[in-house]
Amino acid sequence: MGHSQEEIRAAVEQALRALVHNEPPADLYAPIWYTLESGGKRIRPVLCLAIYDWFSVQLVDLAPVMPVALATEIFHNFTLLHDDVMDVSALRRGRMTVWKKWNANTAILSGDAMSILAYMQITRGPQEKLPALLERFNDGAMRVCKGQQWDMEFETAQHVTEEQYITMIVDKTAALLEMSVRLGACLGGASAECEETLTHFAREVGIAFQLQDDYLDVYGQTAEFGKECGDDIVTNKHTYLSVLVQKRASETQQERYNTYKKLGAERRSEKIEKVMQLYDELQVCTACEEAINAHLASAEGLLLECEQKLGRISPALRGVFASLGGRRF
Amino acid sequence: MGHSQEEIRAAVEQALRALVHNEPPADLYAPIWYTLESGGKRIRPVLCLAIYDWFSVQLVDLAPVMPVALATEIFHNFTLLHDDVMDVSALRRGRMTVWKKWNANTAILSGDAMSILAYMQITRGPQEKLPALLERFNDGAMRVCKGQQWDMEFETAQHVTEEQYITMIVDKTAALLEMSVRLGACLGGASAECEETLTHFAREVGIAFQLQDDYLDVYGQTAEFGKECGDDIVTNKHTYLSVLVQKRASETQQERYNTYKKLGAERRSEKIEKVMQLYDELQVCTACEEAINAHLASAEGLLLECEQKLGRISPALRGVFASLGGRRF
Repeated sequence: MGHSQEEIRAAVEQALRALVHNEPPADLYAPIWYTLESGGKRIRPVLCLAIYDWFSVQLVDLAPVMPVALATEIFHNFTLLHDDVMDVSALRRGRMTVWKKWNANTAILSGDAMSILAYMQITRGPQEKLPALLERFNDGAMRVCKGQQWDMEFETAQHVTEEQYITMIVDKTAALLEMSVRLGACLGGASAECEETLTHFAREVGIAFQLQDDYLDVYGQTAEFGKECGDDIVTNKHTYLSVLVQKRASETQQERYNTYKKLGAERRSEKIEKVMQLYDELQVCTACEEAINAHLASAEGLLLECEQKLGRISPALRGVFASLGGRRF
Repeated sequence: MGHSQEEIRAAVEQALRALVHNEPPADLYAPIWYTLESGGKRIRPVLCLAIYDWFSVQLVDLAPVMPVALATEIFHNFTLLHDDVMDVSALRRGRMTVWKKWNANTAILSGDAMSILAYMQITRGPQEKLPALLERFNDGAMRVCKGQQWDMEFETAQHVTEEQYITMIVDKTAALLEMSVRLGACLGGASAECEETLTHFAREVGIAFQLQDDYLDVYGQTAEFGKECGDDIVTNKHTYLSVLVQKRASETQQERYNTYKKLGAERRSEKIEKVMQLYDELQVCTACEEAINAHLASAEGLLLECEQKLGRISPALRGVFASLGGRRF
């Protein structure tokens, strides 16, 4: 038996706290610590370490590979920091975003420093694996940028197809989960075949995760979601729900949808209500739930496949999967 | 005899052009190619390769280490791209800056992708040297962020001392030159002692280079400088010249200086004229020239020291030094 999910998460938290230092300039580093201490589920480093742990035959010390896991969390938070500037989002995890608390320039520069900090951590990983680790890290990092670019281009696009939308979230959301899994597999010495299966697993989890996010913006509760509900509707953001509307709507329904989209933010409640009524007519809610379940089922199948190949399960990995909405085994 | 400065520069240009690809998303990559093709003297990669070449006993192929050299140029241009957003600069090398030509979000995101591209290049360097190369690269990269942070903090500072100012430019400008030199020394297998001497050389060159930049903003010609003269005076930017004023001014002169600083941009010519008169009274121009010459002389001494240790000169390195304002040997 390897480390439990809780043990791994606690080790990650401790290692993240140990990074904090008081070196000047204060305003370069303070936003980095502020962002890193704001919590979140630490999914990426836990995924990375759970897989490393799973492939290691004996009970392993997490310390030598911890920097690699931290790099995934730091890089993820860096992307959020810059995304919040680009999306002009004032709230993140129930707290003011960095650009809102400081200013946009501080957010840009501290973000840049944060991405370098991520690379500093990768560099502290096992030296003989550095080329392989960097290849995986660079690939994931660049894909996140691509995903964000697609997402920004969607802002001014009239029509976004389901395929385009999935391509975007695979880069924007799944890429870093895939990267975390690949880093863990590489550290643990997994076969290329197992790494590929687990990468596919992470992609399915990532898609499901993003669809859930879209779903919760409309059907979630403000408290559990951490931001106000219906924002995506009010801002006419393309989401999996809006993509489904455009796919399923009759000409008349499409015209109604276009009319609703023109309603300004001052008619917020009315706009949300009308769009949600259209969602109901087109059974968008059910279709989204079904898609989420299909991706989770696919992920589960891939995880089981890898468990069979390896001849042992990973309670930690199963735990992460369950916490992401997957079925508890 | 190794490669000439011109050979090295031509090889760098060719390698940079070979990076360009048409992969989507176009708006993520286009600003990167736009920035990289905008020229500049390619000082950092040429420095890196000239030093690598110098320490290699036989005539070496530059190709295997070229990615490392490109990383320095790409990272440098990334910092300019983000700096232009933060400083709201509309012009760079006589062309529109990225945020001006596209928009701020594109500049932020393409910059992020550009820094990852730099790391992708480093990763393509000699695999056995990767840990050492990354250590040098990370250190230089983080120091540039620190320098930019100090520079931004100076914007709202009443008083900046000479020491604070030099600390800032050592990080903001010299750090990447030091990094390029260190990478070249590492690639060429230089001794720790030689690497240190050359790092010091790069620092002196970097300081001289920034002081020249400050000097040229006031005493240069618009055509050769690539941007309008006197901008630093109009915007009350702390420069080496303004630092010297604060160091040398009597109480009355300080009061006059404070009054001039309050003149708005609509009284541009008057403001520049009055401040320049104060510069004349305090012999700031001469003092700045002397400081530049002192740093260049120190750099020259360090270069000669290394040449003596190594028992051979590097015409390419001497050429780069001369092109940066150093005496032609």
